[in-house]
Amino acid sequence: MKFETYGDYAARTRASFDRQAAMRSMGIRIDDLAPGELWLSMPFNEGFTQQHGFLHAGVITSAMDTAAGFAAYTLMPEEAGVLTVELKSSFLAPARGQRFNFHARVLKPGRTLIFTEAVATAIDGENPREIARMTATMMVVQGRAGVTG
Amino acid sequence: MKFETYGDYAARTRASFDRQAAMRSMGIRIDDLAPGELWLSMPFNEGFTQQHGFLHAGVITSAMDTAAGFAAYTLMPEEAGVLTVELKSSFLAPARGQRFNFHARVLKPGRTLIFTEAVATAIDGENPREIARMTATMMVVQGRAGVTG
Amino acid sequence: MKFETYGDYAARTRASFDRQAAMRSMGIRIDDLAPGELWLSMPFNEGFTQQHGFLHAGVITSAMDTAAGFAAYTLMPEEAGVLTVELKSSFLAPARGQRFNFHARVLKPGRTLIFTEAVATAIDGENPREIARMTATMMVVQGRAGVTG
Amino acid sequence: MKFETYGDYAARTRASFDRQAAMRSMGIRIDDLAPGELWLSMPFNEGFTQQHGFLHAGVITSAMDTAAGFAAYTLMPEEAGVLTVELKSSFLAPARGQRFNFHARVLKPGRTLIFTEAVATAIDGENPREIARMTATMMVVQGRAGVTG
Repeated sequence: MKFETYGDYAARTRASFDRQAAMRSMGIRIDDLAPGELWLSMPFNEGFTQQHGFLHAGVITSAMDTAAGFAAYTLMPEEAGVLTVELKSSFLAPARGQRFNFHARVLKPGRTLIFTEAVATAIDGENPREIARMTATMMVVQGRAGVTG
Repeated sequence: MKFETYGDYAARTRASFDRQAAMRSMGIRIDDLAPGELWLSMPFNEGFTQQHGFLHAGVITSAMDTAAGFAAYTLMPEEAGVLTVELKSSFLAPARGQRFNFHARVLKPGRTLIFTEAVATAIDGENPREIARMTATMMVVQGRAGVTG
Repeated sequence: MKFETYGDYAARTRASFDRQAAMRSMGIRIDDLAPGELWLSMPFNEGFTQQHGFLHAGVITSAMDTAAGFAAYTLMPEEAGVLTVELKSSFLAPARGQRFNFHARVLKPGRTLIFTEAVATAIDGENPREIARMTATMMVVQGRAGVTG
Repeated sequence: MKFETYGDYAARTRASFDRQAAMRSMGIRIDDLAPGELWLSMPFNEGFTQQHGFLHAGVITSAMDTAAGFAAYTLMPEEAGVLTVELKSSFLAPARGQRFNFHARVLKPGRTLIFTEAVATAIDGENPREIARMTATMMVVQGRAGVTG
């Protein structure tokens, strides 16, 4: 699919991402972006594990949510903000690895709602392995005053 | 619903929760628990906000997921572990507040799968406000060797 | 929660429900309604079973989706329509029974989006049993021209 | 991904599908199948519309659920049955068309749980258009006695 963008969408997306303290705290950063797509990565971080020593499902979801939200954001008008309406994550395999990649893409853009999906991959030794999938609905919020979620 | 438990389920649940580094890093702790139920809370934490200064949707999901997972865990046999199969979160209102409460309960226990739900509430001044809801499927994993997710 | 309604919301809801051919074909009807709430029921119907002779999960979802959509509709302005953005169903127990009840309620109303949940119960002999749960996001569509989903 | 199958999986899948009265009633049939994949189709059917004359979201979900369930079933041992644990559908565009196609595939097989996804496409004149997406968790049930959902 070919998507329309507004102005310098890439700079706007990176600047908004940099305001997400949660991503900084978890050590997640942008690897790349394109219209309607975003790639994040995160090194394994002992501070965000669950009781078996794997990365916490909520942290994987945080990264997929952010990837999906900013993939949607790349298509939004300059004065708009993005909010997550809902998300669903499925955990296909244990989050075991030295490094984690998150790729999100827009399934269907819209003026009010943007449908997205994201995939999480663990790099464990030499083999990348898909560990989780998400679908999420993102909302376009016009103007800061409209920020409600 | 009246639920069956095994041995000192409360001590086991608290001990397993304490091994979740992610909860410690986010400042989330257990307020209370009962058979098939768990209450967590978290003070507002600037380190886990999104771009508008509210608590990150992924962090709220992390807390609801953990609350639901351990609500399920309270009903499991002594040698069993818990894994999240999938979760869906809906974000009803902005995560604005000084404090956040998370309550999870088991909807339906089972030998292999346990269905759960969780609710997140923000305490903003004097008014508690429901900000998010989750349903999640948890899996009972027998023995450490069986840990696969 | 106390909800605001517009005009004769009950007559409008019943009239719109009557235009759902799918409900008629499945033998599903309205038992009752209130602001932000709706109750449907359906007798067991051999024509809508799956391979084990239970009611099909998709049919249960159809009823929960409709219950939730019209629970949202009871709160909408007179010229508005309702569309399902997304839904998630969990199947807690086999859909075995002589009769099925579906209760939906609005979790959070909004100008654009309305969050809902629904519960399906099977009446098998004397014991009602919860068999499924759904959460769904509904969209308010202004004017027929705006119907997009 | 290359999947392992058991015996004449194709004949077993078609025979089990034929026992789904719900699919017959809705006019849905198998177009094709492969290990871990299934294609269904359905002509537009006025008897299964919602209040705007489009195909009911629950009917689309029924078809996606069945496609996903039988995609999982193609990979199961001979004596096993399949049950839907949970599903989430997103509705990307109105279900307007003369014909609807449903394609499902296994994302990750397992001994107990099988993760799947499905896509619904409307054929409206000459243009196929994606109208819905689903992810669902399927459960492998050993023996008829084990049928619990």
